[in-house]
Amino acid sequence: MDRYRVKPSHPVKLVDWDPDETGAFDGGKNDGKDILDQLTEELEELQERLYAGHRHKVLVVLQGMDTSGKDGVIRHVFEGVNPQGVRVAGFKVPTQIELDHDYLWRVHNQVPAKGEIVIFNRSHYEDVLAVRVNQLVPDKVWGARFDQINAFEKMLADEGVTILKFYLHISKKEQKRRLEERLQDPAKHWKFAQGDLKTRERWDDYMVAYQDVLNRTSTDWAPWYIVPSDKKWYRNLVIGSVLVDTLKKLKIEYPQSGEDLSNVVIV
Amino acid sequence: MDRYRVKPSHPVKLVDWDPDETGAFDGGKNDGKDILDQLTEELEELQERLYAGHRHKVLVVLQGMDTSGKDGVIRHVFEGVNPQGVRVAGFKVPTQIELDHDYLWRVHNQVPAKGEIVIFNRSHYEDVLAVRVNQLVPDKVWGARFDQINAFEKMLADEGVTILKFYLHISKKEQKRRLEERLQDPAKHWKFAQGDLKTRERWDDYMVAYQDVLNRTSTDWAPWYIVPSDKKWYRNLVIGSVLVDTLKKLKIEYPQSGEDLSNVVIV
Repeated sequence: MDRYRVKPSHPVKLVDWDPDETGAFDGGKNDGKDILDQLTEELEELQERLYAGHRHKVLVVLQGMDTSGKDGVIRHVFEGVNPQGVRVAGFKVPTQIELDHDYLWRVHNQVPAKGEIVIFNRSHYEDVLAVRVNQLVPDKVWGARFDQINAFEKMLADEGVTILKFYLHISKKEQKRRLEERLQDPAKHWKFAQGDLKTRERWDDYMVAYQDVLNRTSTDWAPWYIVPSDKKWYRNLVIGSVLVDTLKKLKIEYPQSGEDLSNVVIV
Repeated sequence: MDRYRVKPSHPVKLVDWDPDETGAFDGGKNDGKDILDQLTEELEELQERLYAGHRHKVLVVLQGMDTSGKDGVIRHVFEGVNPQGVRVAGFKVPTQIELDHDYLWRVHNQVPAKGEIVIFNRSHYEDVLAVRVNQLVPDKVWGARFDQINAFEKMLADEGVTILKFYLHISKKEQKRRLEERLQDPAKHWKFAQGDLKTRERWDDYMVAYQDVLNRTSTDWAPWYIVPSDKKWYRNLVIGSVLVDTLKKLKIEYPQSGEDLSNVVIV
């Protein structure tokens, strides 16, 4: 899956990345789902060890346009894991108290503790995406944030956080299809907000902003992955694979007790 | 499952409650596991509606002696749910900052928001259990807490929180078996702490304290259930059933959009 990682020294152009491809996998949808089932089982086991070990911390950042599948990834990739030890932090429009602080304040508050996996459903990257596109702060202010974010994430990594960032890449055409689907299904109306259409109107601006994010904040300590997301099963497969591979490399064993248990007798 | 609910007007004696019984279910272990599978599927669907509805709040309190299965319930009953919308709050030995506040301060901070299910793995009840047994505060101080807790939970209920409290009832003999199991399995050593044995020595004091909790804080708005927990499958079945029944009674429908979507066109 390394082909989807954005290498710091190789700038990407998003137009060259096909949201509909499935090139890292030979099989089709059904094979892909079978593999995902295996991956979620592996993930479950790895997460138990991580929690037991109480040493590593894992941060998963999910970003992408509306309907790109951030909720779907949380549901399908993480549904099998033990809710104890996995936490989702969603970052919506900031509250007044949050706006009264710097943009990393509410984010820092949610970073993973030892033994935890935390999933960011949107993140501090909105502060160089939506904030930039909607001109909520001067250019100079958001322009300084790329370096700030890299420094912040470097500190987290130095302090033991494994960081994985996924950009869920869908086409404008696929988004149209998904939005129409939501309109047609009353059980999905709650997910539809007219405001999403305003964001859709600024599609090209968002692509420019995402491209800058990918090129300026994919680092060795906190890499971005561009995940082809027009096909949901492939999107889940890519993210599941990267996660399992990364956790496996941590070689987490169940910890020994700090105490000598050889002579313990239970009365 | 109503037989396990502690009725405010009917004081219980814990010695009369058999931790090993399975009386509310006709079948055996395998049937019980099949039913639990159905329940967790129902729970998954109900939780999606709860999250979508963004109106109800649900608080599940788990209490019980070491090895009674609090972690197991979280794993087996809640593992199928979407991590987005379900959160586990664990309450361990308080930090200095927590001790510098009243005992409900850290608890209040973790109560469920709209659309959320929050599971308390231990809770404010430790402040009338461990705190009482270990005499960490004067009798008068912990003695006043039952009424304080009832008032606190009443406020939460009035503000829209559905509260379910489960006491996982195991026998001292079964605890011995489970502690020995942990000693024999190196992958479980991390769960073993010699301190647990000190708690075990005070078993009878804990039973007195639990009995008081059950008799003084089971209310119409926040009932306690005494869950026979010597058999893990039955423990999960009881808790799963109560949860599903309770959520069903809320009659949660997928919400309508607040906007008129009939003429929306996606360009």
